[in-house]
Amino acid sequence: MVRKNHRFTLAARPKGLPRPSDFAFEEESVRELGDRELLVQIQYISLDPAMRGWMNEGRSYIRPVAIGEVMRAGAIGRVIESKHPGFAVGTQVTGTFGMQEYAISSGEGVMPIDPRLSPGLVPLPVMLSALGVTGLTAYFGLLDIGKPVAGNTVVVSGAAGAVGNAAGQIAKIHGCRAVGIAGGADKCRYLTELGFDAAIDYKAVDVRDALRQHCPQGIDVFFDNVGGDILDAALTRLAMRARIVICGAISQYNNTTPVKGPSNYMSLLVNRASMTGMVVFDYAPRYPAAVAEMAQWMAAGKLRSREDIVHGLDQFPHALLKLFTGENHGKLMLELPA
Amino acid sequence: MVRKNHRFTLAARPKGLPRPSDFAFEEESVRELGDRELLVQIQYISLDPAMRGWMNEGRSYIRPVAIGEVMRAGAIGRVIESKHPGFAVGTQVTGTFGMQEYAISSGEGVMPIDPRLSPGLVPLPVMLSALGVTGLTAYFGLLDIGKPVAGNTVVVSGAAGAVGNAAGQIAKIHGCRAVGIAGGADKCRYLTELGFDAAIDYKAVDVRDALRQHCPQGIDVFFDNVGGDILDAALTRLAMRARIVICGAISQYNNTTPVKGPSNYMSLLVNRASMTGMVVFDYAPRYPAAVAEMAQWMAAGKLRSREDIVHGLDQFPHALLKLFTGENHGKLMLELPA
Repeated sequence: MVRKNHRFTLAARPKGLPRPSDFAFEEESVRELGDRELLVQIQYISLDPAMRGWMNEGRSYIRPVAIGEVMRAGAIGRVIESKHPGFAVGTQVTGTFGMQEYAISSGEGVMPIDPRLSPGLVPLPVMLSALGVTGLTAYFGLLDIGKPVAGNTVVVSGAAGAVGNAAGQIAKIHGCRAVGIAGGADKCRYLTELGFDAAIDYKAVDVRDALRQHCPQGIDVFFDNVGGDILDAALTRLAMRARIVICGAISQYNNTTPVKGPSNYMSLLVNRASMTGMVVFDYAPRYPAAVAEMAQWMAAGKLRSREDIVHGLDQFPHALLKLFTGENHGKLMLELPA
Repeated sequence: MVRKNHRFTLAARPKGLPRPSDFAFEEESVRELGDRELLVQIQYISLDPAMRGWMNEGRSYIRPVAIGEVMRAGAIGRVIESKHPGFAVGTQVTGTFGMQEYAISSGEGVMPIDPRLSPGLVPLPVMLSALGVTGLTAYFGLLDIGKPVAGNTVVVSGAAGAVGNAAGQIAKIHGCRAVGIAGGADKCRYLTELGFDAAIDYKAVDVRDALRQHCPQGIDVFFDNVGGDILDAALTRLAMRARIVICGAISQYNNTTPVKGPSNYMSLLVNRASMTGMVVFDYAPRYPAAVAEMAQWMAAGKLRSREDIVHGLDQFPHALLKLFTGENHGKLMLELPA
């Protein structure tokens, strides 16, 4: 039986927002497995703001996706054929399988999903969300870089996003006051439901004023997913020795003009504060322990996950845009037919 | 005998570069000392880029100088009258005595100068320079925030300035490669004489290109006194886990337009780097140990100090501008007649 794989490759480097024509939808026959290879049928594919950066040329924390290469994406799938002794047919696995239906892998970077976690504790999509790279980004960014102490005020931008809401919830678990910044009343209501102490709707209010109101003692940790004017507003409200975690800058990813640097960065000097970048992949050796801890939080009802699931691989170019227009509610992903 | 004191008070908050009319030159009679007060005759007054910030309204790391108040300045003087048991007449002291000839002090923040250091080891002006707050800024900024490791590449902006040249020399003492950025061939020659491995003349070459040439392994520590385009250039050349020390931003102090934020700040994420502000006053309890160590370096010929001494209090408004036009060579200060 020859299987047909459908996939999206990068056809052109986007200028500004990615357009459908920046991708090519292709069909290919799935080749025979070589020795020590496995074939994964993909079930869920993660859509992440970071993908926009991977489409750009130039030096970054990971090499750019090449033109003609399948678009890079994290995913969950099931091993359906294997010539690899470490992966039995039927195993649920997670890895960077790409924007396609089937992936052939050497097993490198592929992790089996512990069935006690999923489906035992949570549905599969959660393994791309709170218990996946998304939740891990929040976990290590907040705890290792932000170093929150009980009683601290932690402000999260892009707080209704998948990383942001996990960061705020983890801040609460650590005894902090969590303030989220998000766009729109719906998202702000969601943050309050999750237990955030305050939610700032940047589309409706002046963020500087709102931060002054909700952070009377200043901001101890700012977990930034957004950059731009919101980062600049947060800089005006830092507490002494504040820590800014640079996790992302979604407001700047589709710029066709130069990135807006934070004009108020001298607040770092005034407040003896720091601004530090993080990339979750550095923490890979600690993923299992972190996932185990987050799973306990989920089991205890302290950490909640929400997924925004779009059906069908062909939806990729349009679904991706939801991240940049802010239309997604929870962790955005594609679900492929079984 | 009634002594006459001459002093400069802040008459107006400068817009852009400070003008002579922003200060008032005043004469007053020196009053009688109260209990536990001392009278200091000022000999040397430090001129520092930070003074520009102190003239602005608004929250900073120190309260602004009030309109009508004597301009804040670090200085060295001699106790000529004392009703304070801790300070005998004749003692050389350093403190924030202000832009004037005589200062009455409660002794708070006033430190006697150990005669073994000066005049024993170095002339008095060095106690405002390499062995003063200037050298201490370089010492704590570089060592505590920059955390250089032998073999690291340390880049210093404003490197011919008093803080910058000390930072570069301390980097060399710690076994690092030191690269200085300064304006003009003279200053660059000076850096080379001090032992910097390379000097980049930002007025003559493209700083990004020069950093690429002189920092083939990237920048491990960037000690920034300048901000603006030079900070942005340095951000493009960070090594993994680089540390940026935000000590100052002299290129932005006299802006009448908004501060230029660092557009390339996402390099912090790509390189897992940090950018941290520092204020030397936080390290006051550790000043004596640091001065002792730096004095040893000076005695061993490893740390050199250069002073640019302008004669006469009345020169203050014009001399200050040398800091912003880059005309000073070495630590700028005023010398008052004995």
